[in-house]
Amino acid sequence: MADEQKHGASRRQFLTGAAALGAGAVTAGAAKAAGPDPLITEVQEWASGLGDGVDATPYGLPIQYESDVVRRNVEWLTADTISSINFTPIHALDGTITPQGCAFERHHSGAIELKKEDYRLMINGLVDTPLVFTYDDLQRFPREQHVYFCECAANTGMEWAGAQLNGAQFTHGMIHNMEYTGVSLRTLLAEAGLSVAGDLKDKWVYVEGADASSNGRSIPMEKALDDVLVAFYANGEALRKEHGYPVRLVVPGWEGNMWVKWLRRIEVMNAPVESREETSKYTDTLEDGTSRKWTWVMDAKSVVTSPSPQAPIKHGHGPLVITGMAWSGHGKITRVDVSKDGGKTWETARLAKAGENKALTRFYLDTEWNGEEMFLQSRAMDETGYVQPTKAQLREVRGLNSIYHNNCIQTWYVTADGKAENVEVSS
Amino acid sequence: MADEQKHGASRRQFLTGAAALGAGAVTAGAAKAAGPDPLITEVQEWASGLGDGVDATPYGLPIQYESDVVRRNVEWLTADTISSINFTPIHALDGTITPQGCAFERHHSGAIELKKEDYRLMINGLVDTPLVFTYDDLQRFPREQHVYFCECAANTGMEWAGAQLNGAQFTHGMIHNMEYTGVSLRTLLAEAGLSVAGDLKDKWVYVEGADASSNGRSIPMEKALDDVLVAFYANGEALRKEHGYPVRLVVPGWEGNMWVKWLRRIEVMNAPVESREETSKYTDTLEDGTSRKWTWVMDAKSVVTSPSPQAPIKHGHGPLVITGMAWSGHGKITRVDVSKDGGKTWETARLAKAGENKALTRFYLDTEWNGEEMFLQSRAMDETGYVQPTKAQLREVRGLNSIYHNNCIQTWYVTADGKAENVEVSS
Repeated sequence: MADEQKHGASRRQFLTGAAALGAGAVTAGAAKAAGPDPLITEVQEWASGLGDGVDATPYGLPIQYESDVVRRNVEWLTADTISSINFTPIHALDGTITPQGCAFERHHSGAIELKKEDYRLMINGLVDTPLVFTYDDLQRFPREQHVYFCECAANTGMEWAGAQLNGAQFTHGMIHNMEYTGVSLRTLLAEAGLSVAGDLKDKWVYVEGADASSNGRSIPMEKALDDVLVAFYANGEALRKEHGYPVRLVVPGWEGNMWVKWLRRIEVMNAPVESREETSKYTDTLEDGTSRKWTWVMDAKSVVTSPSPQAPIKHGHGPLVITGMAWSGHGKITRVDVSKDGGKTWETARLAKAGENKALTRFYLDTEWNGEEMFLQSRAMDETGYVQPTKAQLREVRGLNSIYHNNCIQTWYVTADGKAENVEVSS
Repeated sequence: MADEQKHGASRRQFLTGAAALGAGAVTAGAAKAAGPDPLITEVQEWASGLGDGVDATPYGLPIQYESDVVRRNVEWLTADTISSINFTPIHALDGTITPQGCAFERHHSGAIELKKEDYRLMINGLVDTPLVFTYDDLQRFPREQHVYFCECAANTGMEWAGAQLNGAQFTHGMIHNMEYTGVSLRTLLAEAGLSVAGDLKDKWVYVEGADASSNGRSIPMEKALDDVLVAFYANGEALRKEHGYPVRLVVPGWEGNMWVKWLRRIEVMNAPVESREETSKYTDTLEDGTSRKWTWVMDAKSVVTSPSPQAPIKHGHGPLVITGMAWSGHGKITRVDVSKDGGKTWETARLAKAGENKALTRFYLDTEWNGEEMFLQSRAMDETGYVQPTKAQLREVRGLNSIYHNNCIQTWYVTADGKAENVEVSS
């Protein structure tokens, strides 16, 4: 960003045009001076009356004016709401942290209610000493903290065949990014007598939840001993019910379905179980009818969240902030480019901070817009050198039968009046 | 931490004693095997029925079992709840992020409700072009993101004279730590034509809120041009009403009273205003009756949050995790020590991650406890080399008349049955 822009000089035109006041009229006593805007010149009720006392909100919710910023589901997407998705309102968020209250949820048999006192975690199978942990037991092991994104493998899945869902919340909202506190799975496996010195190359853990679906998944031992967490807290407080209270698995960078909620059992095995959730589901059917399996890692991906269909440009011409988010299951985001012309030319966006390991990165393009049509795209790159592909590139490799792991470049068509819609561009 | 402890080997004794099952009885079919714990051996209702559908919670709240983890006020502390404090339940949190819903609030005339459409921010005084910004105007400037702690100058203030309040929530809960998104104040001042090249050494900004109290404060220009943010978002979403919706000031590392909520005006001046909030209040009366003024920075400080009076030790002897948080308005926390004997001997705690600039750092001491009485303390150090003082050291310099800026070492007396209480030790 040029220094001139950083200091706002290039922006002065629109602001002095819109709202500058004659210097003579603006003093410390401006509230009484004559002026064009009663919100400045007249004493408002909120400046003369009293507001709410601190006893009003032991635990607060967003203000009523933000009541549209909520999770939403898509009725036709699943047969029943107990096996469905509630999408994060990413079009209305900024920054990187996702509040638990509006972070996407996906259940296979509904969100269950499980007290800490009733919680048990069993570790069994190929270990010296099968163990059962209470919630209090888990609290006595050394804890870690990390911010990680969690993305459902099906995020953007409806978009394989074409532009289906009109809004970033629905095309890309199966993702959240939270600060987790928990115990390393490595520590708990060692407690049960898994020798980390032994030959663990072909070993697996099978993890399942306490809900009726059990949502069992197989995880290779190398990952289980790497960075997997048995987590109790997200964003500083206990996990919410819909996020697996009191304990969930955190499998950094890997598909959300493996982040088993209401975690109840971890079995060490010689082979994967090949459960429903990793054969019939969460595999990608290719053009020839065969399936890609063990596609655990979420590849680098990004999306422009504003402007987008649910977040049109409402202000006039001149300065415009384009923003979005990028992430990679392989590590850190190193660069994000933005295109206004459907991928013909690219500008490098500004990252709000240096990319962090397997966590969301916020990007901004501080630009000018004078009513020209745009075909807005973003393209993420990660520390492995990987570049987010176009939809055409993905289709070339995988055909049109896939649902999961669609990390292609998204296009929003922005019209002269600032509205945006979900489109495809040929490239 | 020793490798042995990291891998949990030292913990096996308490777990195998409490909950190990005979290896023969524990298989993938354990739910049907005979065993001592029906929560393991019998199918529970939550494992056979259905949970809530995704339509249940457009915006979620904590689960009912966590209903004690809320902000609380102290009735006798202030004359009325519209000018009072709601304390963060820090004893029940972990990690570093404070959810907005339970982050401490302090108002001087109540939390007001102000729509984005009604929002105006005026910059006036010694600038080329006095300006009025709407909320939409602010959204068009380049945005930044940072995690910062916000601590009220009065945090721990009641403890000057002795151990008064029995709980970390009340002694140290006037603090929160959030990820803020906003525009640099530097950018907005430049927009109004403040020449950053000119001699700004003696200039000030006076900032005030739109609530009846206005809560006006003077900030020296050097700070105003450094890292002050005009913020709209916290932890990814719009500021909550009680945190200044739609716009508040963020003054990193400086006392919370300067983080003006419902920000309405910034005036560039040749001198500080010396308002009520920086003369009669938010100054420290010394032994001789004179006052310390311009004590803006919050010095390095820490507190053990668990165990603490509201978070006693409930489990048996053996492994114990001692945890707490540390922060410094001067920059990064570099080290935290923990004492179990009231400051006679110290152990260096483990920081969950490297200290971040003017943000909370979580620390842990993974230790053993066998019922011995403890006088638990923590002592923070920051990158300037500053060491958190004892209460005796603070009193020696400032006497007993102060309220604000008490950053002394806190002591919890832990009894043989795991209860904790707020005490003073002579040192």
